[in-house]
Amino acid sequence: MRSAAVVGTGLIGTSIALALRGRGVTPHLLDADPQAARLAADLGAGVVGAPRTPVDLAVIAVPPQHVASVLKEHQLSGLAHDFTDVASVKARPRREAAALGCDLTRYVGGHPMGGREVSGPLAAQGDLFQGRPWVLTPGADVRERTVDRARALAELCGARPVLMEPDRHDRAVALVSHAPHLVSSLLAARLLDGEEAQLRLAGQGLRDVTRVAAGDVDLWTDILGSNAAAVADVLAEFALELGSVVDALRELGESAPERHPAGRARLAAALTRGVRGRARLPARTPAGPGLRLSGVAAGN
Amino acid sequence: MRSAAVVGTGLIGTSIALALRGRGVTPHLLDADPQAARLAADLGAGVVGAPRTPVDLAVIAVPPQHVASVLKEHQLSGLAHDFTDVASVKARPRREAAALGCDLTRYVGGHPMGGREVSGPLAAQGDLFQGRPWVLTPGADVRERTVDRARALAELCGARPVLMEPDRHDRAVALVSHAPHLVSSLLAARLLDGEEAQLRLAGQGLRDVTRVAAGDVDLWTDILGSNAAAVADVLAEFALELGSVVDALRELGESAPERHPAGRARLAAALTRGVRGRARLPARTPAGPGLRLSGVAAGN
Repeated sequence: MRSAAVVGTGLIGTSIALALRGRGVTPHLLDADPQAARLAADLGAGVVGAPRTPVDLAVIAVPPQHVASVLKEHQLSGLAHDFTDVASVKARPRREAAALGCDLTRYVGGHPMGGREVSGPLAAQGDLFQGRPWVLTPGADVRERTVDRARALAELCGARPVLMEPDRHDRAVALVSHAPHLVSSLLAARLLDGEEAQLRLAGQGLRDVTRVAAGDVDLWTDILGSNAAAVADVLAEFALELGSVVDALRELGESAPERHPAGRARLAAALTRGVRGRARLPARTPAGPGLRLSGVAAGN
Repeated sequence: MRSAAVVGTGLIGTSIALALRGRGVTPHLLDADPQAARLAADLGAGVVGAPRTPVDLAVIAVPPQHVASVLKEHQLSGLAHDFTDVASVKARPRREAAALGCDLTRYVGGHPMGGREVSGPLAAQGDLFQGRPWVLTPGADVRERTVDRARALAELCGARPVLMEPDRHDRAVALVSHAPHLVSSLLAARLLDGEEAQLRLAGQGLRDVTRVAAGDVDLWTDILGSNAAAVADVLAEFALELGSVVDALRELGESAPERHPAGRARLAAALTRGVRGRARLPARTPAGPGLRLSGVAAGN
């Protein structure tokens, strides 16, 4: 992968462009908002505007809802030989791309697992994906070279490429990212009911549980809408257990808890499952450089 | 406040004792488990055993369920002139103390808003309450001197004393601490259903949302059980909005989201409320805890 374009110079697109610049590739930057592309270029992320001849790989870095139409547009304009995207949802954009008649032999879905609550090119960081998984969801028709180029992109960004079925990816991110985001938002929304004096008692725990709730509303509406069924499945299970716990609390609230051993046991069981679930989270990724070097070696 | 006793040398009791030692007061340490008291003393938190003559203030640092009986026991034994406690729930222990015939003119409820997920004396830190609110919930009958002594205790620990009605305190902590804890636990429990490969995609967001779910199960069962009605109220509202959001997602999942503008709008409204609620959280306390808390701590 020797030449690249980034379509959409928000947080993710600009971060990828910065990473490529750091590895000697100067991406062409395009954005529906020309000022955003200029800003990214000013930050050192590449050059504004389409190339004269097709680049090796174009990265469609727009919200999930727009991936298919932007892919179609730039396949028609001949922007690149191969295409990938970075949307957090993979099945629906692919179906939409097929429906629009995109060339699926030259497109592979991608999802770099990194981000920040802040958005826009100014928040971009060239090391945003360092050591993180970067999921690729190749379809049956895609040519090998397209996948190789997307894999090279991930490695140039310091990420670990992971191959996965689109539906499996979507169920995974519903579980580990989308449903948690919505739960965090609904919990943060409860604070609108609190008095000032009550909120002053908040500690680091609440701050952590609600941190992701500060994320961009438009982008997350799009993400959640595009992965709606999988997110609903996770939340429906969550809601069932929540209902059972609220019942137990109602019972315990009526008189002394020690008179309701069954309610206490249900509460303790829910908390124990939480401790066990939390313990399943993998340890934080170790420092990035080693991983990046192994990526370089693989590229040689 | 020139002399003190700490009954219950777990995380909170030992942290208070360490703070007092740092301010020139050497507390007497008591615990149902003599080894825990000896361990706290070995850590420099004070001396093991009851004093010969009553100390100024005894701090009952046991789980909410046991506050009333331990208070009764030590008022009878003449451990101290005045008493306070540190339980995260204030109304029920007070009712139970009244029912047991405790001397409520010499007891004021207290709740220092600091903690960690790890428990026991070994996790104690003398600066655990530095800059944090320390709620005091004086009843109608309590004498002024008792409240003054509890206030002095909070100040010696570097905390900010805040006076509040017990019920109001309990509704506040249900909102900012207890309900969030349970939501975090239920979300973490969902991870028990995930495959390894799915969980490997987890990022910092999920780690933050589920951090408090690692807390001690017995202690949290007790806390939640003792504040059950208030926690159930918060969670019932939460469950209502959750149900509405799941409905919107089901609608959006059936076909392209752009065909369901009402569903999208409901989703966006929920996320917007989350952003606004999150923005109501006060800025982090300037004092020491902020730094240390990024890794581990949480308000109870």
